[in-house]
Amino acid sequence: MSSQFEVSDPNFRARVEQSFADQAVMMLIDASITRVEPGEVQIELPYRADLCQQDGFIHAGISSTIMDSACGYAAFTLMPADARVLTIEFKINLLAPAAGDYFRAVGKVRKPGRSVTVAESELHAVVDGTDRLVATMVGTLMTMRPQ
Amino acid sequence: MSSQFEVSDPNFRARVEQSFADQAVMMLIDASITRVEPGEVQIELPYRADLCQQDGFIHAGISSTIMDSACGYAAFTLMPADARVLTIEFKINLLAPAAGDYFRAVGKVRKPGRSVTVAESELHAVVDGTDRLVATMVGTLMTMRPQ
Amino acid sequence: MSSQFEVSDPNFRARVEQSFADQAVMMLIDASITRVEPGEVQIELPYRADLCQQDGFIHAGISSTIMDSACGYAAFTLMPADARVLTIEFKINLLAPAAGDYFRAVGKVRKPGRSVTVAESELHAVVDGTDRLVATMVGTLMTMRPQ
Amino acid sequence: MSSQFEVSDPNFRARVEQSFADQAVMMLIDASITRVEPGEVQIELPYRADLCQQDGFIHAGISSTIMDSACGYAAFTLMPADARVLTIEFKINLLAPAAGDYFRAVGKVRKPGRSVTVAESELHAVVDGTDRLVATMVGTLMTMRPQ
Repeated sequence: MSSQFEVSDPNFRARVEQSFADQAVMMLIDASITRVEPGEVQIELPYRADLCQQDGFIHAGISSTIMDSACGYAAFTLMPADARVLTIEFKINLLAPAAGDYFRAVGKVRKPGRSVTVAESELHAVVDGTDRLVATMVGTLMTMRPQ
Repeated sequence: MSSQFEVSDPNFRARVEQSFADQAVMMLIDASITRVEPGEVQIELPYRADLCQQDGFIHAGISSTIMDSACGYAAFTLMPADARVLTIEFKINLLAPAAGDYFRAVGKVRKPGRSVTVAESELHAVVDGTDRLVATMVGTLMTMRPQ
Repeated sequence: MSSQFEVSDPNFRARVEQSFADQAVMMLIDASITRVEPGEVQIELPYRADLCQQDGFIHAGISSTIMDSACGYAAFTLMPADARVLTIEFKINLLAPAAGDYFRAVGKVRKPGRSVTVAESELHAVVDGTDRLVATMVGTLMTMRPQ
Repeated sequence: MSSQFEVSDPNFRARVEQSFADQAVMMLIDASITRVEPGEVQIELPYRADLCQQDGFIHAGISSTIMDSACGYAAFTLMPADARVLTIEFKINLLAPAAGDYFRAVGKVRKPGRSVTVAESELHAVVDGTDRLVATMVGTLMTMRPQ
């Protein structure tokens, strides 16, 4: 990855981790950020019954919560130090029920841009150490600079 | 609405409310279902600081949680009594920061179908009694029948 | 519509019509622009066998061609005189086969913005004077200004 | 690819090529199908001025035409001999202007299913033998069987 994307703020890891810590909802659902590389971020979520929909699977909105942040922070790693990141839109495809011991959202920048960045994330369910792809997302992120 | 869509199960309201009660995540975030009509459903969510992202706005994933369920249950009102509803995919556009006293997701069926239903939802933020559109969603739902 | 959106360039109709005339593909498929209002544009397309997919319906990509331009020009009506419009992304839902005598794409701005505009379009098939909704699109458009 | 996906109809290549030949729009725009493998299809399109939008780039709807068919036929390769394929919805992200000598849409199945298949396609612009990614699509396809 380090050769593919150019980082403009060498301090991007601390910046991402601080912003993630400021997302109160991540504490509510017990999500943690487990990897921060240029253009790539990983967020993990343990299974909890109180995050589920009517059939006992993680609700698509909760999957979206960590997948959107994975896309957003992947984009954020490449932004200048004074920038904020804003999600304009995303689309999620639910490929299989979100059942498992825990879940890993992997977000990657597909196309960085000065104002608009496109990123993608995958959601993997981990059961007994085995990985299964359960959802994909593509999102459009905006770089917000102080005027 | 009652003239636009045909309901196949007269008991649709109880069926929707029971399923909503089975969505444990709705209790976690304090969401409640406030309206169930043929092809239309409303879900409300109070503002809570622990549902927010880094700037103090409701996280897009939490907005998605109630908007996806609003789409899903709008579709579910028109399904047969033995059916389950499954979200295949959705897309959300974030039009304005989700700031407000509370939030109302209004889901409506756009095109019902025997196996595939398309529904849309809007998210309104209510501040001092005034409504503001903050997000739109379009989702594709599947009718699952016992084999 | 005139009360809902503020037009910054009173010459928006001529600007849209000139740009549409510059879209060579519209001549290839015989599409014409039939209505230009603030935040709203209509494009019509006659049925032609050589625009079809394998079952004799208009190909989804051709439907997308007029629906994307309907979204784009709806956004363009509200842009300043020196701006260009760029589609960042769109999503289309195909609700019914695109069969009919001719087709009408109606594009409307959902949320205008200084840099990002969200617009929606509907595609109607007209058969014997009767209208049928066959597709919906939501698109994200960007305002491009000279530096 | 042959190990990743199971083909149910050994005659899938002829079936795809016949269906592609039945898409009249492909002749109009000079597109040809250049590769058919299990779960993967490639469609090529030469640059033509009459396929362009106002800035001289291939119109997003024409890009969508070959990308949607690339997704659809990638899905179709895995379907039973008596099935038809139907696009339910797709989303396209436009990453760069579609300028080049010719264009290659590569469609791949992401998740096959008995009734619903998710596929993705990339659009590459080729200039002087060099490839550039200009658009990505994710689409949802339906298997239609005789009743």
